[in-house]
Amino acid sequence: MLSVDEALALVLEHVEPLPSVNVSASDALGMVLNEDVISDVNSPPHNKSTMDGYAVVSSDSGELRVIEEVAAGDVPHHAVTPGSTTRIMTGSPIPEGADAVVIVERTETIDGDRVRLLDPTITAGQNIMPLGTSLRRDEVVLTRGTEIRPVEIGLLAEVGHTRVEVTPWPSVAVLSTGNELVPPGEVPTAGHLRNSNGPMLTAAVVRTGAKAIHLGTAPDDKQALDQMARSGLEHDVLILSGGVSAGLYDLVPQILTELGVEQVFHKVRLKPGKPMWFGVKDSGERRTMVFALPGNPVSSLVCFELFVRAAIHRLAGRRQVERVRTTARLGIEYHQTCDRDTYHPARLTSDAPLPRVEPVPWRGSGDLRALADANALIVLPAGDHFLADGDEVEVIWLDETCCRP
Amino acid sequence: MLSVDEALALVLEHVEPLPSVNVSASDALGMVLNEDVISDVNSPPHNKSTMDGYAVVSSDSGELRVIEEVAAGDVPHHAVTPGSTTRIMTGSPIPEGADAVVIVERTETIDGDRVRLLDPTITAGQNIMPLGTSLRRDEVVLTRGTEIRPVEIGLLAEVGHTRVEVTPWPSVAVLSTGNELVPPGEVPTAGHLRNSNGPMLTAAVVRTGAKAIHLGTAPDDKQALDQMARSGLEHDVLILSGGVSAGLYDLVPQILTELGVEQVFHKVRLKPGKPMWFGVKDSGERRTMVFALPGNPVSSLVCFELFVRAAIHRLAGRRQVERVRTTARLGIEYHQTCDRDTYHPARLTSDAPLPRVEPVPWRGSGDLRALADANALIVLPAGDHFLADGDEVEVIWLDETCCRP
Repeated sequence: MLSVDEALALVLEHVEPLPSVNVSASDALGMVLNEDVISDVNSPPHNKSTMDGYAVVSSDSGELRVIEEVAAGDVPHHAVTPGSTTRIMTGSPIPEGADAVVIVERTETIDGDRVRLLDPTITAGQNIMPLGTSLRRDEVVLTRGTEIRPVEIGLLAEVGHTRVEVTPWPSVAVLSTGNELVPPGEVPTAGHLRNSNGPMLTAAVVRTGAKAIHLGTAPDDKQALDQMARSGLEHDVLILSGGVSAGLYDLVPQILTELGVEQVFHKVRLKPGKPMWFGVKDSGERRTMVFALPGNPVSSLVCFELFVRAAIHRLAGRRQVERVRTTARLGIEYHQTCDRDTYHPARLTSDAPLPRVEPVPWRGSGDLRALADANALIVLPAGDHFLADGDEVEVIWLDETCCRP
Repeated sequence: MLSVDEALALVLEHVEPLPSVNVSASDALGMVLNEDVISDVNSPPHNKSTMDGYAVVSSDSGELRVIEEVAAGDVPHHAVTPGSTTRIMTGSPIPEGADAVVIVERTETIDGDRVRLLDPTITAGQNIMPLGTSLRRDEVVLTRGTEIRPVEIGLLAEVGHTRVEVTPWPSVAVLSTGNELVPPGEVPTAGHLRNSNGPMLTAAVVRTGAKAIHLGTAPDDKQALDQMARSGLEHDVLILSGGVSAGLYDLVPQILTELGVEQVFHKVRLKPGKPMWFGVKDSGERRTMVFALPGNPVSSLVCFELFVRAAIHRLAGRRQVERVRTTARLGIEYHQTCDRDTYHPARLTSDAPLPRVEPVPWRGSGDLRALADANALIVLPAGDHFLADGDEVEVIWLDETCCRP
């Protein structure tokens, strides 16, 4: 059986970033840039004042005649010469002849036309940002592969890039399977339960940034399953949950194979999540990555975190596709024995010098409630672990709560 | 002048979570729950098998007669007695009389009706999850104040909560001011530059989850500014950038005051970002929080990160509203002298045992490009700092890159 690392490597071997699209810069937030962006301007576009004050010749001192006032958006019309000065605003162009700005707080107005400098000495260049300090025209300011955050949105605007080449988000279909499932709006009768995996995995897809399509529930029935899986194969990723164990009614791998999905692996040495199945289907230009996850909610979410999320991020053009792992210190004793690598739901909290982590009480892969108390997974390789309070363990931060453990 | 902590405390004193709304559970992702959610079911709803196998009496062994097969969604119709067994699937209800499940891999089929158990001893309760292990009917499963992540979406579905009381996202208007600004689609003439703050701050709002409304650019003209600010005051938050320095044309505080916005503070002992202005306006039921940020892009983004983001998260009902601060180790020597608290753009990278941080070369508050190389801010209190390579400093992780430093 494959290890988690081997399985992840196989998933990533089968996925390529989607073909580039051209979108409005305002729609590109969170996407990955697929071109080098070149500036068509210098920034600042002129030697600019970084403060409100008076543009002067730096060798000057004492009283000066105010020859002009330049507001933002205006340009100076007169050169500054010894004995004269121009009132200038933050961001304004420095007039010809001036080589320093004295801030307004270090001056005294004598009358409308005259001002006294209070500083005995003035340094050439003070409070001036030279033309092109931040950006130079024709220079590459953002490179292919950059993730577009708010700062990059600002830079794209600054260089007039209102449209941009990016790798698009994949479309990801989610399909739950199982005769026992009823929709969340219904009251389950004996032997039934509500479909929680569908909404949960759909939300997990939304959180990655990708387009999520919730297909609903398919019964354990060949024809229905076949039909719904077909519609799922029209997307870049199809996530199924349930129907992948060795049970008599676990039809999913068989139906997917009949639909032309080529199996890459079935089963991973992972707890929870062992029965996971992964395959790909190529039709024309489109490759669909098909992940059939176990029906138990905790298993399905762990598989999503480890494999599906990585595939989505790679399709979206990201280089870093795995969640950050970090070292944390156990807050309690913890014993764990398993012949598979284990990812145990856990609660991570801020602490110095290392964050502190405690496994949440977990009563098996069906226990979604335990996962609601968790914001991390403790990673333990197969084997017997008798860990003491204070021992260091490897953890994966889950979800955006990673920002506030 | 206020310190950053004092200014933030004043902002938070003036903000309350928005009134609760009732939304479809699928729209609640990322929002904060504003009710206690009670389960209407037990989970599992019956004593359930956690494996595919045979339900048996645990004192049994050897060959057993298969009396029934129960698929997912079916219920058993016959009691299991010594010498008999029921074929059972993962998730299926345990038949009356049975108290253990033997996994299919530890059995041998003799013929259609008979099976041999390979395990010499069977433990009562093995591979059975008792009714209500994870959730009990009438029990509170999610409490008011919980942030709704994918797991919580799953739990809401499991307990049939298709609609949910949440604190909504605030609506946040963004208005750039300044005669020098042209829209990103235009080529700036002498003295002008493109409006990068508007798109950048709008994207920063989008990233918080809130509804962003980009109002565009207002010139430094009383009438135009008055009119655009009025339309901004119809939202929960109005962010302006530019026009808050001491310059002759910095009209923003004056116009806001005339529009009935009560000033809470002007200027913070902060670099970059000192000229920031904050006020509130109450009109009927709505309170608008008004942040007038400096026009320099780095200043405006730092002020957004420290103050506006916190206000948005508090409006949205979050308890934890500040970004996580962490300790990092400097990767180079770093000297910093300032009479204000300084937040220097920096690059944080993974390292053990502490992340490593380097200030990015930064040529003043107009240098958006430096910020594009940053994923963190180094926090230094006012004063002289001569820090050596390897010294520990406090950093704030910026943006979702916090998840992958």
